[in-house]
Amino acid sequence: MAKAWESRPLRRPDGPGKVPSMEPFARRRIERLDPGADRRDVDHDAVVDEAPLVVTARGAEALVVMRTPGHDLELVRGLLHAEGLPGAPTVALTQRAPDVVDIDVDVTALARRALTSTAACGVCGRAAIADLEQRAREVTATWQLAAAAVAALPAALRAGQRVFDATGGLHAAGLFGRDGAARAIREDVGRHNAVDKLVGWAVAAGVALDDVVLVLSGRLGYELAQKAVRAGVPVIVAVSAPTTLAIDVCERFGVTACGFVRDGRCNVYSHGWRIG
Amino acid sequence: MAKAWESRPLRRPDGPGKVPSMEPFARRRIERLDPGADRRDVDHDAVVDEAPLVVTARGAEALVVMRTPGHDLELVRGLLHAEGLPGAPTVALTQRAPDVVDIDVDVTALARRALTSTAACGVCGRAAIADLEQRAREVTATWQLAAAAVAALPAALRAGQRVFDATGGLHAAGLFGRDGAARAIREDVGRHNAVDKLVGWAVAAGVALDDVVLVLSGRLGYELAQKAVRAGVPVIVAVSAPTTLAIDVCERFGVTACGFVRDGRCNVYSHGWRIG
Repeated sequence: MAKAWESRPLRRPDGPGKVPSMEPFARRRIERLDPGADRRDVDHDAVVDEAPLVVTARGAEALVVMRTPGHDLELVRGLLHAEGLPGAPTVALTQRAPDVVDIDVDVTALARRALTSTAACGVCGRAAIADLEQRAREVTATWQLAAAAVAALPAALRAGQRVFDATGGLHAAGLFGRDGAARAIREDVGRHNAVDKLVGWAVAAGVALDDVVLVLSGRLGYELAQKAVRAGVPVIVAVSAPTTLAIDVCERFGVTACGFVRDGRCNVYSHGWRIG
Repeated sequence: MAKAWESRPLRRPDGPGKVPSMEPFARRRIERLDPGADRRDVDHDAVVDEAPLVVTARGAEALVVMRTPGHDLELVRGLLHAEGLPGAPTVALTQRAPDVVDIDVDVTALARRALTSTAACGVCGRAAIADLEQRAREVTATWQLAAAAVAALPAALRAGQRVFDATGGLHAAGLFGRDGAARAIREDVGRHNAVDKLVGWAVAAGVALDDVVLVLSGRLGYELAQKAVRAGVPVIVAVSAPTTLAIDVCERFGVTACGFVRDGRCNVYSHGWRIG
C-alpha cells in the first residue's frame, strides 16, 4: 500500500512537492534491522524536519536558510541582529507562507550586511539545491552489504579516531570498503569538513567512491547528504538521527541512508535493498 | 606563574598572535567545578583545535574556512570537488603556511563556482572575525552564578525541549534567568539557528541579554561563541566540548564559557570569576 511519504518528492522552496509542516518533525517509513536477532521490521518513526526558509526583502529574494520549521520570525530577526542590521529588534517581519518570511527593508541594506545568499557555505542558498538537481547523478551501484556489517561500522570508526578520547569535541567521518575495512578516517570540528577531507583524499588517490560506505559519527543532515550524493557514495551510515531533507535527498538520488546505527542495530530510511 | 596559553591572543589567519599547531588539539587551563563535592580544581585539558584556513588562488585570497587543522590539502580538494570544479582531483595544491593553502587556478574560476568568501553563513570568512573585533563590545556584566545552579541548567534545558524525545535529531538552546528559570527554549537541526531564534525572540521582547545565561545542548564552537558575544550574553553553558577558538573569543570578549556541564559537574574555560 503506497504511503504519501513514499513518493514524496524533494521539497523545494517553491516546488510543486512542497508539503508545509506544522510540526518540527514528520513521520517516515523506516526499516528497523536487528541482525543479532535476525529481525527486519517495517515501522514508522518521527524524523526531525529540515526545510529551506526563503527570506525576501520587500518581496525580492534575499537569502535562503536551512532550518527546522518553527519560530521563523525569531530566526530571521536573530540573524539580522547577529549581522548588525540597525533596527533589527523592531523591523517588521511577515510570514508570507510556511517557508517564506518577508523583511521590511530594501535588499541593498541587506547586501551591505553581507546577508545576500550564496552557495559558498554549502548549506544555505537555493543555489545549493538547484545545483544538486542539475549536476548530481543518481547513484546506481548495485552491491549489497550485510546488516551485521553495517552495524559493526560505527565501532570501527570510533576505534580509528585519533582525537576524540582526548577532547570529546570532534566529529569523525570514515570511508569503509565493502569488506568493512577502513580506507580513511578524518576528524574535524565541522562535520562537513571531515567529509570534504575524505572526499578530497579519495578523488586524489583514485579511490572509487561508488564502492565505499560513508560512516558518520553524528547526525545526517541535508548538507552531508548532498556531499555524499555529489561524491557518488551509495551508502551512508550515521550513528545518530537523519533529517527529513537528508532522507529526501538520499531517496531521490539513489543513496541508502542508515541512521541510529548503534548497539548492534540500525534504521534504514532509503534504498534499503542495499542492506541484505 | 604565567602560562603561554593564559595570555594567548585571539588567533587570526595573519595576526601576530598566530600559534600554529601540529596537533588537532591544544592544552588549555580549565577549572573543574564539582559543587556537590564542594570542589574547584585548576587543571589542564585537551581542547579540540579550531582555526581559520585561508585558501588562496594563485596568491589571491579566495576564501576562509573554519576547520580543525590537519589534512588541509584534502579539505580544499574535497571542497573544490563538492563544488564541481573541473580538474579538482588533480589541481595542484600547496600548503604555503600552516593555515594557508594555495590552489593553482585563477580566482575567476572559483568565483564562477560561488566559492568566493562571504560572511553570509557566519562561520566562514575572514570578514566574520574582523567584523567581530570591530563591532562586538566586551561583555561587562558583573553578576555571579553559583556552580550548583550552572550544573542544573542542562537538565532544565532538556526538560523544556519539545521534540528531542521524538526524533533524537535536534539541537536545543535556551536562555535562562539568573534564578535558573527558562526564559525561552528553541530547537533546530542547526545549532546556530536555535541561537538565532532565541536572540531574535529576546531583542523583540526587550529581554536584557546581559542578564541571562545561554545554555547549549551540544558543543561550543566559534560560530556560537561569536553569536553570544554579539548578543552580549555573559555566560555560556554547553553540555559538550568547546573549541580553542570559541574559548579565545569568550576570553577576549569577557564571556564565561562553561563546557561539559553534565552529571552535576562543570568545566570553566574563561572568566571563571562569574561562577561562585
